[in-house]
Amino acid sequence: MKISEFQKLIRDLYFKKDQKRGRSDTFIWLIEEIGELANLIKGGEIDSEKVSEELADIIAWTTSLANLLDIDLESAILQKYPYKCIKCNSSPCVCGE
Amino acid sequence: MKISEFQKLIRDLYFKKDQKRGRSDTFIWLIEEIGELANLIKGGEIDSEKVSEELADIIAWTTSLANLLDIDLESAILQKYPYKCIKCNSSPCVCGE
Repeated sequence: MKISEFQKLIRDLYFKKDQKRGRSDTFIWLIEEIGELANLIKGGEIDSEKVSEELADIIAWTTSLANLLDIDLESAILQKYPYKCIKCNSSPCVCGE
Repeated sequence: MKISEFQKLIRDLYFKKDQKRGRSDTFIWLIEEIGELANLIKGGEIDSEKVSEELADIIAWTTSLANLLDIDLESAILQKYPYKCIKCNSSPCVCGE
């Protein structure tokens, strides 16, 4: 699935609810998902099924924010990650941390 | 660009660095990006260019985590968001918050 198609899917599913909730509260929902991921990865053993779900949720809530902020996520991603590092101009990236 | 292609792009660019940094510190980098987004949206006026960059970064760090956790992000997303809400079985979603 294309990133642009996923953004449309999230818009179709949730935009009315996202608009009603608003930007700040949507950000809080994203943070909740971040917290759930933290909870899953802080220990040693990873439950792949649960982690998959949280990663999907983080992508989805970030996409809801993009919809509310009127940002084309695929364009934003291609601009920042154009198949090379925009800092060192290489792939793989050879920047220091 | 497909989600799976983006995951491969991030793997090609950053996997060695991600592995060296490890899961916990990669999570902290994700949180830093979350903080940068918070900083941009807490006020009134939105700088679309900066917000686009932070949203792309959040997606990218989440993808780095997926690589480290050996999760196929596109499959994870399609399983959780199969063109309808998996809770109310509708599109658009009609669940209460």
